[in-house]
Amino acid sequence: MREVFVDGVGMTKFGKFPDRSLVDLMVEASQRALQDSTSDSVEAIFVGCQNPEEFTSEANIAVNVADALGMAGLPAYRVETASSSGASVLEAAFYAVASGRFNRVLVVAGEKMTHLPTPRVTKILAEVIERYERNSGASMVALAAMVTQAYAHFAGLKRSRLEHVLCKIAVKNHRNGAMNPFAQFQRQITEDEYFNSRIISYPLRLYDCAPITDGAAALVLTNQRTDVKISGVGHGTDTIAVRHRAYLHHFNAARIAAREAFKMANRAPEEVHFAELHDAFTCFEIIGAEDIGLFEEGKGWKAVERGDTEIDGKFPINPSGGLKSRGHPVGASGLAQAVEIVWQMRAMVSKERQVKRNDVALLHSIGGMSNNNVVVIFEKPGVPLGKGFSFNREISDVSKHRGDPIRVGEFGILDAYTVLNVPPEGFPSPLVLGLVSVPSGHRILARALNPVQFKVGERVFVSKEEDTFYFVRPNALEKAMLSARRTLRKLKLSLKWRMR
Amino acid sequence: MREVFVDGVGMTKFGKFPDRSLVDLMVEASQRALQDSTSDSVEAIFVGCQNPEEFTSEANIAVNVADALGMAGLPAYRVETASSSGASVLEAAFYAVASGRFNRVLVVAGEKMTHLPTPRVTKILAEVIERYERNSGASMVALAAMVTQAYAHFAGLKRSRLEHVLCKIAVKNHRNGAMNPFAQFQRQITEDEYFNSRIISYPLRLYDCAPITDGAAALVLTNQRTDVKISGVGHGTDTIAVRHRAYLHHFNAARIAAREAFKMANRAPEEVHFAELHDAFTCFEIIGAEDIGLFEEGKGWKAVERGDTEIDGKFPINPSGGLKSRGHPVGASGLAQAVEIVWQMRAMVSKERQVKRNDVALLHSIGGMSNNNVVVIFEKPGVPLGKGFSFNREISDVSKHRGDPIRVGEFGILDAYTVLNVPPEGFPSPLVLGLVSVPSGHRILARALNPVQFKVGERVFVSKEEDTFYFVRPNALEKAMLSARRTLRKLKLSLKWRMR
Repeated sequence: MREVFVDGVGMTKFGKFPDRSLVDLMVEASQRALQDSTSDSVEAIFVGCQNPEEFTSEANIAVNVADALGMAGLPAYRVETASSSGASVLEAAFYAVASGRFNRVLVVAGEKMTHLPTPRVTKILAEVIERYERNSGASMVALAAMVTQAYAHFAGLKRSRLEHVLCKIAVKNHRNGAMNPFAQFQRQITEDEYFNSRIISYPLRLYDCAPITDGAAALVLTNQRTDVKISGVGHGTDTIAVRHRAYLHHFNAARIAAREAFKMANRAPEEVHFAELHDAFTCFEIIGAEDIGLFEEGKGWKAVERGDTEIDGKFPINPSGGLKSRGHPVGASGLAQAVEIVWQMRAMVSKERQVKRNDVALLHSIGGMSNNNVVVIFEKPGVPLGKGFSFNREISDVSKHRGDPIRVGEFGILDAYTVLNVPPEGFPSPLVLGLVSVPSGHRILARALNPVQFKVGERVFVSKEEDTFYFVRPNALEKAMLSARRTLRKLKLSLKWRMR
Repeated sequence: MREVFVDGVGMTKFGKFPDRSLVDLMVEASQRALQDSTSDSVEAIFVGCQNPEEFTSEANIAVNVADALGMAGLPAYRVETASSSGASVLEAAFYAVASGRFNRVLVVAGEKMTHLPTPRVTKILAEVIERYERNSGASMVALAAMVTQAYAHFAGLKRSRLEHVLCKIAVKNHRNGAMNPFAQFQRQITEDEYFNSRIISYPLRLYDCAPITDGAAALVLTNQRTDVKISGVGHGTDTIAVRHRAYLHHFNAARIAAREAFKMANRAPEEVHFAELHDAFTCFEIIGAEDIGLFEEGKGWKAVERGDTEIDGKFPINPSGGLKSRGHPVGASGLAQAVEIVWQMRAMVSKERQVKRNDVALLHSIGGMSNNNVVVIFEKPGVPLGKGFSFNREISDVSKHRGDPIRVGEFGILDAYTVLNVPPEGFPSPLVLGLVSVPSGHRILARALNPVQFKVGERVFVSKEEDTFYFVRPNALEKAMLSARRTLRKLKLSLKWRMR
C-alpha cells in the first residue's frame, strides 16, 4: 500500500445552527480544510453522513456537497456506518489514496440534527438498533445504560463509585471542551451539576450523554509526505443485536478494529500518546480505552480516578472535550476526532489544551450500538517503531451468539438492566428492561413485570407472551409454584399458570 | 494498483417479495455469490443501498447484512451514491482490494421498495432531486422526460420517430428480460402494448420507465487471477440541479466516468463488445450509449432502429433486459449489471440470451438525476490491448452553470418541457414544467401558466412570483404589454402587471 498523509484539516463550530443547512456546514468545513492545505485542488470527494435522508430530507448528499463546493464533476461518494461514518469515510478514502487511484482527496463528514424535536431525533437514531430490541423499547441510551451496568459489574464497581467515575469523565470532558472554541458546550460543569442532572436511563444521567448537535469536519488526504501520517486503520463489527453479543461489558468490534489498526501500523497500545475516543455515553470512554488496550480490562476507571486521562495526565483522552462536550453530530464525530488529533499533533490548539506528548495518536469511533467500530492511528513520520505489533485483548467469535431461544427457560441471570424514565411512545413509564442469560445459552432482552430495584447478577424468572419476554424477581410463592411446575412436568402433567 | 478480479457472482430474482426483508434478499444474493466462488471466506463486506432508512426503517445496514450472514466481526461498509450505489460500492471495494488492504471482499447491493405505496416510493426517490426542482413538482420521470425532449431536439428526432425509437428500446429490453430467469418482467411486450400504455410525463409512457422492484445482487472481488478482470473504473458527478447543467441532452457525469474508466483500462470505446446501461427511462439507454462513446452523438437512435443493440446485433445493450425489464431495485441495479456482465463473459446464460463477443464489457450506472455516474470496464485477462486509451466526447466544466438569476429576463428559450399527468401532491394536474434559458445565461425551471402544446426551442415569456417561475407562450397583447413595460422601464417608470 502507498503511504497516506493528512494535509489540511478544518471543522465548523459544533452546536445548534437553525439557519444553516447540512450542505452549508459541510461546505464550510471543506473550505477550511482546503484553505489549510498546500493546495485547494482535489481529485475526489468522500462524504460521511449517517442519515441525511431522514434528518434533512436530503439524499444524494455526496453530489449536493460536491456541487455546493463548485466541484461537480469530481467523483463523490458517501460512506455510511451509522455513528462511525466520519471515521469510516476516512478509511474508505484512505484505501482509495493507498491504492494509487487518487493522489489527493477531500474527506468531509457532517450531520444536521437540532432542527428536529428530540423524540424524532431519538427515533431516527434508534433505527440503527436491531428491530426486536427497538420494538421492545430499547433506545440507544437504554442499551448504553445496560452496558454501563455490565461494565460496573465486571469491574466490581459499586454504584456510588461508578457514579463518581462517570461524573469525573463528564467534568473532565466539559473542562476540555470549555477550552475548545469549536465545542458545542464551552463551559465547565461542577460535580453538583452532574449529580443534579436527571436520570435518563438508570444509571445514566443527562450529563452522561452526548448532546444532539449540528456540525461538520473535513480533511485532505494525500500521498505526498506531510507531518502527519495515517499509519493504521482497522474496522470491526459485532452482532446488530446487543443481546447476541459474546459479552456486554466490552465491545468486541472495537477490539477487532484496534487489533487491525495496530497490526497495520506495526505498533502496540503503549506507544500511543493520546486518544480521541467515542464517549457518546461517559462509560464508553473507559470501555473504549480498555478495548483498545490503553488500560487493563476492568481497571480503566482507576486511571480516571487518578486523573491520568486529563490533558496533563499520563494519558490524555478527549482533549477536544469528546462527543460529550464538543457535541455529537453523529456522522461528523469520527472525522472531528481526526481534526482534533491533527491539531494536537501540529500543536495548533491553545496552550492549556495542548497535550504534551503528541507523536502517535489514536482515533476510536463507534458506529450504531457499538457494532461498526473504527480505529485509526496517526503518527509523525519518522517516529521510530517500538517492538512492533502487539495487542492482547481477547476477541470473541461473535457469530456463535446469534438467535433467540424458542422456549424460555424458567430462570436466568440478569446480566444488566435499566430503568427508562421517558420510554419511547407506547411503553409504560418507567420501563425496566433487562438482559437475561437463560439456561439454553441465549441472552434475551426482557421487560420487568414490575419496577423494583434489581441487582446485576441476580436470578430472575422469565416468561414470554406473544413476542415479548418478561422477567421478575420471584417471591417465595412463585418459587414454590415454579418448583411445583417442574415436578409436574417431570410427571408429564402441565399446570397452566402465568406469572404476575 | 494491484489487479482486481471477480470471483463468484449471484443475485436474487428481481420482483415483488412482500414476505421478504431487505436483509434476507442481500443474504440470498451474497450466499449465491459465495457459493459461486472458489472460497466462501472473505475479509470485508461492502454494501450498496440507496435508502434502507426510509424504504425499510432499517439503518446500519452494513452490519445488519454482516450479522445475518454470520460474519459479524468483519469490517462492513455501506456506500451510497443514490441509484448508482450498486456500482459505486463495487468501485469502493475495488480500491480496497487494489490498495492491498484486503485480498477478498464480498460486495452486495440491494433495495426493498415494493411494500410501500407508489406515491411514497416516488417521494422517497425524489429526495435525490435538488430541493428547488423537487419543490417545483419535478419528479424523476418529469426530469427524465425533459431530458428525452432535449435529446430528441438535439438529434433532430420528430415526435413520431422518437416514440418509435423509445418503443423499440422497451420492446427489445422486454424481449431480453423474457429470457432472463432473474428478471422482474419475464414477458415480451408488443408495440401496441407500448403505445397503449399511459403517458406518465410527456413524452414518457409507463413502458418507458423502469418499475419499482425488490432485489439484491452480489459478487466477490479478489486479487487472485480469475477469468474476469476489472480493468477500468470511472466516476463522475454533475450539478445536483438539472437546470444548472451545461447541457440537457447528454450527461456530463457519464462522460467523465467513461473517460476515467477507459483511461484506467487503457482502452477505447470501440473495443467494448457489449454493455449493461442504466435504462431507468428508455431514452437513457441511447443517451448513455452515446455518452460512453459507443455511438456518435445524436446518432444512437439510428443504431436502435437498425437493431444493432439487440443481443444478436453489432453491439448488444442490456442483454439482461436492463432496468426496464429486469427491474430496478435502485441501490442494487449497478451490481446486478455487473453480475449479468460476468455471466455473459463466462457464457453462463441461456443460449438465446448469450452475446456473441464477450471479451470486453462495460457497465454504466446512473446515480440520482444522472449526476453521480459510474462506468466499470470488465475484460478477460489476456485480451490484447488495442491502440490504447482514447475517448472523444466533449466534457464541460459543469461548475460554471450553478445558481439562479436574481431577476428574470422577459423572454427565454424553452429548452425542454413536460406534461405531468399525475403531479406530486399539491400541484395542479396536468402540471406543465419547462426548462427555459434566459438572457442572463441562466436556465430556470418554470411552470407553464396554461397547459398548451409547446415546442422545444420556442420563445416563451417568463415571470416570477415568490419563489416560482412561470412561462407562457405570449399572445399579441402580451407581446405589446411587455414591449410597453420595457419602454416604461427605460423611462424609469414601472408598470404593475402580472401575466395570466
